Amino acid sequence: MHVLITGAAGMIGRKLTDRLVAEKAIGGHDIAGLTLVDVVAPPAPTLAGAKTAALTIDLAAPEAAARLIGERPDIIFHLAGIVSGEAEADFDKGYSVNLDGTRRLFDAIRAEGMKTSYQPRVVFTSSIAVFGAPFPDKIGDEFFQTPLTSYGTQKAIGELLLTDYSRRGFFAGIGIRLPTICVRPGKPNKAASGFFSNILREPLSGQEAVLPVSEEVRHWFASPRAAIGFLIHAAALDLAQLGPRRNLNMPGLSATVGEQIAALRRVAGDKAVKLIRREPDPVIDGIVAGWPRDFDTARARQLGFKAETSFDEIVRAHIEDELGGRIAL
Amino acid sequence: MHVLITGAAGMIGRKLTDRLVAEKAIGGHDIAGLTLVDVVAPPAPTLAGAKTAALTIDLAAPEAAARLIGERPDIIFHLAGIVSGEAEADFDKGYSVNLDGTRRLFDAIRAEGMKTSYQPRVVFTSSIAVFGAPFPDKIGDEFFQTPLTSYGTQKAIGELLLTDYSRRGFFAGIGIRLPTICVRPGKPNKAASGFFSNILREPLSGQEAVLPVSEEVRHWFASPRAAIGFLIHAAALDLAQLGPRRNLNMPGLSATVGEQIAALRRVAGDKAVKLIRREPDPVIDGIVAGWPRDFDTARARQLGFKAETSFDEIVRAHIEDELGGRIAL
Repeated sequence: MHVLITGAAGMIGRKLTDRLVAEKAIGGHDIAGLTLVDVVAPPAPTLAGAKTAALTIDLAAPEAAARLIGERPDIIFHLAGIVSGEAEADFDKGYSVNLDGTRRLFDAIRAEGMKTSYQPRVVFTSSIAVFGAPFPDKIGDEFFQTPLTSYGTQKAIGELLLTDYSRRGFFAGIGIRLPTICVRPGKPNKAASGFFSNILREPLSGQEAVLPVSEEVRHWFASPRAAIGFLIHAAALDLAQLGPRRNLNMPGLSATVGEQIAALRRVAGDKAVKLIRREPDPVIDGIVAGWPRDFDTARARQLGFKAETSFDEIVRAHIEDELGGRIAL
Repeated sequence: MHVLITGAAGMIGRKLTDRLVAEKAIGGHDIAGLTLVDVVAPPAPTLAGAKTAALTIDLAAPEAAARLIGERPDIIFHLAGIVSGEAEADFDKGYSVNLDGTRRLFDAIRAEGMKTSYQPRVVFTSSIAVFGAPFPDKIGDEFFQTPLTSYGTQKAIGELLLTDYSRRGFFAGIGIRLPTICVRPGKPNKAASGFFSNILREPLSGQEAVLPVSEEVRHWFASPRAAIGFLIHAAALDLAQLGPRRNLNMPGLSATVGEQIAALRRVAGDKAVKLIRREPDPVIDGIVAGWPRDFDTARARQLGFKAETSFDEIVRAHIEDELGGRIAL
């Protein structure tokens, strides 16, 4: 089985690669080939007995997608894209990368299949940004997509293309709407959602973090570990169960900032919590007010997708996966 | 006020043109310019005191959209597109015309606005084909879009682009999801939905018509007259009332084929009804089973959009508008 990962140098891409290298198989099939591609060099994978490649390629470049698809990968994880803030700041780049890049990849698959039969699995990472306020208290599986950002618009369009190309039989697609990933590893960034991770990750490493909103703010989360689990599960799932509705809200955990902090206190003590500095920022408060707070993900749960059920688990997963099991306090 | 109509040679385009020529104004503003464009020559309009043009242009051609938008029309009715059957039969053409054509038009507006301030009204005709079965008994304003055709996919993508471009301030867009138009004037065509109109239009002209489904089949209708009313209302509506959710299910009439026939009997007598020949076609039956049957259009009605409330009205509108008030029986 040959696996292609686009956007392989990103956080999710690297963690997915690590997991595939560790498990050596997907859905009981050995991985015989693993191709990683991104606009910045992805780390070269080492997988005994498998043909691996790490390529620095811009999917928006002519022929780039055709070249990758010419290898006829069996499973394609399409993670490539620019993030919400950048897609909002640079309108042209957002549409070029997130919409045209996706369409070119899908069209390359179709073109390859017109030569000789070819119908790979395509796992597409979408986002809860396809939804826009106002929301019901819990967003159900049949709530409509009215994105309030260009990023969310591009993801919603990608979902529609995925569904139509799948219906046409060009590939077997499934779209995974990821919750906000928490705890996001790495350095604090300026994304409006950054603080949700910062207030846990930084204190767990003995660093101060800024909280710009009130403790009452509620949002929708899954750990990086759960996110990788979704993608692997989607790659092996029997898609006949899905019918024509190919895009799924993933399970997650609805929690307030106060509940995040309480979990931090239970797992790492008051010392950690004291490193959170309150610095209210009405701009961030306003942005976050437009985000989903809770979902009823009956459909995905029925299909076997699993996420954490308490924030203590999310904090512990971070300590295990990123800090070698130890807190630096 | 300068008005541009794309797809002006189509049924809706021609009727919209006739209405604008008759009313000479939109929302109280005189029409000083009227540009009609289509891939086949639209009828040249005559409007005293106004600059008019009928152009044969393919919007998919490079620079075509820029040329039209360079005239800086104040209101753009974007009706151009290929129909469902053709978009399904010719995948490339459907995406090229319905998706790329729309995006090129929208991008041309944005580019024009980057020269000097320009923010026209864009009225986009979408369709109930953005919805795909299974449905609730009545589809509400917040039901999700899961099209089951490439045409419906392309319309849903157009809606998303319209919303994002409007949010960005490139234009003031509104999307109008038309019900199935009935009674559609002209000759019987091979569209799967054709019989809904054929069984009324043909008998009213003394011709036989074929009914391929049972009388229990329920569907969602508006007359051509109501459809033109939606577009004119959308062109003058205060869009501040809409907020960011720019695409609206239009009001219509939910009726069974049996109710259609009963209206025909009331308006034109048994003689007309006897011209309907039953020829069950399981293929058409199957296609129609996947179509919406009823809507709750509270939002559009609140915004002042109006449609017929009985099939008798729809039949009478056809007799008035197409048959000079007389039935040929």
